[in-house]
Amino acid sequence: MRILSGMRPTGKLHIGHLSVLQNWVRLQAENKCFFFVADWHALTTAYDETRELRQNVREIVADWLAVGVDPERSTIFVQSHILEHAELHLLFSMFTPLSWLERVPTYKDQVRQLGEQGKDVRTYGFLGYPLLQAADILIYRADAVPVGEDQLPHIELCREIARRFNHLYDAVFPEPQALLAETAFVPGIDGRKMSKSYGNVISLDVGPEELGRLVRLMITDPARIHKTDPGHPEVCTVYAYHTIYSPTAVPEVEARCRGGKIGCVACKALLSEALEQMLAPIRAKRAEIMARPGYVEEVIAAGDARAREEARATMALVREAMRI
Amino acid sequence: MRILSGMRPTGKLHIGHLSVLQNWVRLQAENKCFFFVADWHALTTAYDETRELRQNVREIVADWLAVGVDPERSTIFVQSHILEHAELHLLFSMFTPLSWLERVPTYKDQVRQLGEQGKDVRTYGFLGYPLLQAADILIYRADAVPVGEDQLPHIELCREIARRFNHLYDAVFPEPQALLAETAFVPGIDGRKMSKSYGNVISLDVGPEELGRLVRLMITDPARIHKTDPGHPEVCTVYAYHTIYSPTAVPEVEARCRGGKIGCVACKALLSEALEQMLAPIRAKRAEIMARPGYVEEVIAAGDARAREEARATMALVREAMRI
Repeated sequence: MRILSGMRPTGKLHIGHLSVLQNWVRLQAENKCFFFVADWHALTTAYDETRELRQNVREIVADWLAVGVDPERSTIFVQSHILEHAELHLLFSMFTPLSWLERVPTYKDQVRQLGEQGKDVRTYGFLGYPLLQAADILIYRADAVPVGEDQLPHIELCREIARRFNHLYDAVFPEPQALLAETAFVPGIDGRKMSKSYGNVISLDVGPEELGRLVRLMITDPARIHKTDPGHPEVCTVYAYHTIYSPTAVPEVEARCRGGKIGCVACKALLSEALEQMLAPIRAKRAEIMARPGYVEEVIAAGDARAREEARATMALVREAMRI
Repeated sequence: MRILSGMRPTGKLHIGHLSVLQNWVRLQAENKCFFFVADWHALTTAYDETRELRQNVREIVADWLAVGVDPERSTIFVQSHILEHAELHLLFSMFTPLSWLERVPTYKDQVRQLGEQGKDVRTYGFLGYPLLQAADILIYRADAVPVGEDQLPHIELCREIARRFNHLYDAVFPEPQALLAETAFVPGIDGRKMSKSYGNVISLDVGPEELGRLVRLMITDPARIHKTDPGHPEVCTVYAYHTIYSPTAVPEVEARCRGGKIGCVACKALLSEALEQMLAPIRAKRAEIMARPGYVEEVIAAGDARAREEARATMALVREAMRI
């Protein structure tokens, strides 16, 4: 299968992104994968905050490589380097009713949510962002797109665009399937959604000491004053992490917590160790990557070249079908 | 001055287009001119009628050359061949409020008018068409754009986009001026607006016999039955043509018509002669151009190359300013 996925370059990745990336690593073993940095998409909500965009592109690719995305196997590239995405987006725009975009369920929600944060995203570009996403996917004639549940309406729109194009002109595009991956929900260290803006993230490249410090800051059961008080794992962030990162230890941790047999400090030490075991090789690989001057740039340049070739082949078909 | 103008490739041009082209010919004598075939714009209202698009592009360029647009002096190119237009359009879309586009005065009018013709243009691309136009203009950092009065709101939007970009990022764009050219209103041979859909046009490449036939079909003063009846030039299409194409003959024609001293047949013969004098050299030059196999394609390829170089230079500044 041809598989495409992308991420916005909004800064260094954190452990909440790990399951998505591990899914990419699994997928690349048996499929032709295209993974791209969606820097144009980043502009849809932050057109006025581009100071760190180029650095963020570099950092995110380093994160991907550190987790095991393989540039020999997968095509890793940057969206804005392939102008044909913009061309296809423009061509799609000609036959896409405004109502299709206005009715994307996430659209009104996001306009409202971001509006509450003081950000007015009622721009032409923000309305068109699912259409740009459709172009991103279809230009590689992808068969499947790994997504979270919230992205399903966008994949549905993408399929509608493919059908409409094929009906109006010629059968150029497959209708891509959504690959719903099981991804763990990783809360931030304060139990809320993990988000840079909340200052509650654990970065992928965090050092061992900082990792220990962050785990020690985690919110546990507030009703538990003394170590011997019975704990309530279901309200404890540390416990939530154990279920994700040290599942084999969970039965014992749970029993000892409920029985007042393990204190939060010891429980956190166990978690720190499990996280450190997982993150150490990623951190080491990332350091190795960053130590090679120009390496990330080389990976991107090689991926761009491969992506461009594929995009150009599709656009030749598109232009022929549209007779433009 | 750097001047940019474009036309949609909707088929062969007619004499109603002549004054616009003659203005281009005047402008190219003292300015750096970019003239482009707006084939992407043609899709905004006719995405499903592309069968003749490529042929129309060729025909319109042949018409331009026949009237005297000089490919040595001016850059003649095709919009869809310069992908950077789509890129700049996409980047502009990020910071362009939907309301700016919804409030372009022509927008609601055209949605209604085309709707009455059974054409639903409430698409994403049609809403964004003035923004694409802004990208077309600004990517060549044009100082001025020759337009008709109806296009003034589009130039105003273009200036707003330039200001917003310069304010958000860096001063890359001039604010282009509208050059309001005096263009004669040429009615169709039935007195209505000249339009292919009404079957009332005189093509630029019409032959002398067909020209005579079309002039003989022109609607004159319906109150005039006999040659000796006094005529009313103000309601006569032939007279309207005389004022445009044989202005020196107008006083005499008018006096003789009002005095019942010239019949419509003779008056039409005078007009035919004046039109033939004007059109013969254009027709000859057009025939010469079409007789050179591959010539129009060569002109376009050379113009594309020059336009691409200019567009790329601007986009390098744009990407640097946006830090993308």
